[in-house]
Amino acid sequence: MRAAILYGPGDVRIGERPDPKIIKPTDAIIRLSATCVCGSDLWPYRGVEQITGPTPMGHEYCGIVEQVGSEVKNIKVGDFVVGSFVISDNTCEICQAGYQSRCVHGEFVSQTIGTQSELARIPLADGTLVATPGIPPDDLIPSLLAASDVLGTGWFAAVAAEAGPGKTAAVVGDGAVGLCAVLAAKQLGAERIIAMSRHSERQRLAREFGATDIVTERGDEGVGKIKELTGGLGAHSTVEAVGTQESMMQAIRATRPGGHVGYVGVSHGVELPGEELFFAEVHLLGGPAPVRRFLPELIDLIWNRKIDPGKVFDLQLPLMEVAEGYAAMDERRAIKTLLWP
Amino acid sequence: MRAAILYGPGDVRIGERPDPKIIKPTDAIIRLSATCVCGSDLWPYRGVEQITGPTPMGHEYCGIVEQVGSEVKNIKVGDFVVGSFVISDNTCEICQAGYQSRCVHGEFVSQTIGTQSELARIPLADGTLVATPGIPPDDLIPSLLAASDVLGTGWFAAVAAEAGPGKTAAVVGDGAVGLCAVLAAKQLGAERIIAMSRHSERQRLAREFGATDIVTERGDEGVGKIKELTGGLGAHSTVEAVGTQESMMQAIRATRPGGHVGYVGVSHGVELPGEELFFAEVHLLGGPAPVRRFLPELIDLIWNRKIDPGKVFDLQLPLMEVAEGYAAMDERRAIKTLLWP
Repeated sequence: MRAAILYGPGDVRIGERPDPKIIKPTDAIIRLSATCVCGSDLWPYRGVEQITGPTPMGHEYCGIVEQVGSEVKNIKVGDFVVGSFVISDNTCEICQAGYQSRCVHGEFVSQTIGTQSELARIPLADGTLVATPGIPPDDLIPSLLAASDVLGTGWFAAVAAEAGPGKTAAVVGDGAVGLCAVLAAKQLGAERIIAMSRHSERQRLAREFGATDIVTERGDEGVGKIKELTGGLGAHSTVEAVGTQESMMQAIRATRPGGHVGYVGVSHGVELPGEELFFAEVHLLGGPAPVRRFLPELIDLIWNRKIDPGKVFDLQLPLMEVAEGYAAMDERRAIKTLLWP
Repeated sequence: MRAAILYGPGDVRIGERPDPKIIKPTDAIIRLSATCVCGSDLWPYRGVEQITGPTPMGHEYCGIVEQVGSEVKNIKVGDFVVGSFVISDNTCEICQAGYQSRCVHGEFVSQTIGTQSELARIPLADGTLVATPGIPPDDLIPSLLAASDVLGTGWFAAVAAEAGPGKTAAVVGDGAVGLCAVLAAKQLGAERIIAMSRHSERQRLAREFGATDIVTERGDEGVGKIKELTGGLGAHSTVEAVGTQESMMQAIRATRPGGHVGYVGVSHGVELPGEELFFAEVHLLGGPAPVRRFLPELIDLIWNRKIDPGKVFDLQLPLMEVAEGYAAMDERRAIKTLLWP
């Protein structure tokens, strides 16, 4: 089958890989209906994360089940399914508490599978995959694909930040995850949603997703602006969706004492100063989003056309043109690239 | 009046200070019934925190109101009162949300007042002080004094760690705050309470306060032991009551994904590694405890003899012997020293 492979920094191309096969009786094989490029794929693409050899890429996916192992019960051949970027059994104590991204039998799709391809083997299919009510119309596929990571991650961030009625939410990061966090904060009932962005296209989508205010300033200036908008106190609920030292500190400082920071930007080189954190007195929760927790609810919202997160895909290309898909995101010409296998 | 003054590292003595007077109409003057030495007083005593000159010490207090300013309404002359170590108006938006230790008009008692003395001026008396139902019998005074900081702080830590029914709580730190966190976890209904301590006296008190298990190992070994006691997963609710890099990492690593860490040890030289924190996926909340939030409930529990946190005072001395009070805690001969003015 054809699959995107990263050969070295800046060099991602379509190569040939053997078709995946059922290895364990709990596996399923799916034929991808759509896949996409994640902001976190740019870390190895940029050489910030090292790779040791040609690396299959991609961890977001939705598609049709082609084959299931003998122990798979909930998922049938022919189902249209969406899955999380982390494999989970959905039955262990950690999964049952809602943290499927840290399942005791968990593994990251990105490290073992690679879904920027025509086919993919999904382990622990019963725990990982959720079937939609039927085969979706084509125009719903981008939104269903978004649920696999970017929407689920933004949603988790907004939940971790406890965005809700009567609250002011602030979102640091105007990538696809940040924009989905705006959408999530709106759905969760936040009264005011401040998006931090200096890009007019992203500002426009943020407003469409529910942002009531846009702050273009960054760092201390951006924090000052959030304070100004919140009677000097800071936001109740702040989402961090970048993963750098600057963005983490911006999120923490923009939050009022007793407020909540939900951080989902994959942390790179961050060191949190203990003393400042102590006196900030904010709640912190973050990490790889337990997307599986939210999938049934998100699929329902998408299926009933209550939300349209697929709008984050402002570039759609055939899988064969994966190189351009990465380059466009790297150069910030695209928010997020969808790839049609 | 007589008051404890720190003249330099290791040199704390009784000196003379002018009697405090009402400065603002919202002030009250109290005559201390008892005061005590805090673990955090040891930071400047040890020279870890610099002082710029002779410094009045102490921030824990209870006593009888001698005088009130013209705008004080809730507190009367003759009341027995307990107050927090942070002044708060108890009416601002942050106070109303339960974070009185970050009141917009807040100030630390330690920095401006000094309660290891005969008298003290308490600003914002209506917001800061809580009167007991009557004049307490002498044997309740140590416990009421404990509510002012050490119990309130341990309580906040256990609440921040979301200790409760069906949960396993772990407590890092066997000082008075850690021991009070054990007591709090018990009151909050935690099923299992693991105290980390290698001192037999402190282990004994931890068990008396509700600990079901004692772990003597520290660092990675201590974390391994907690994992062993929790089916490999870690505690649901971990309290950190020390404030060092080692204790913070021990608390984070001992907590299961999705679990909660409540940290109240005043942070000294701590840097939290972002990547590890990201993948740990635990809730973090800490800082100066909003003791005022809990005072009415704690006073009630003490008044009705449901809890006896005063047991943390294993050394009681006249205020005149403050030097020995500090030395005994510094050398870990005493858990906590109560001073009778």
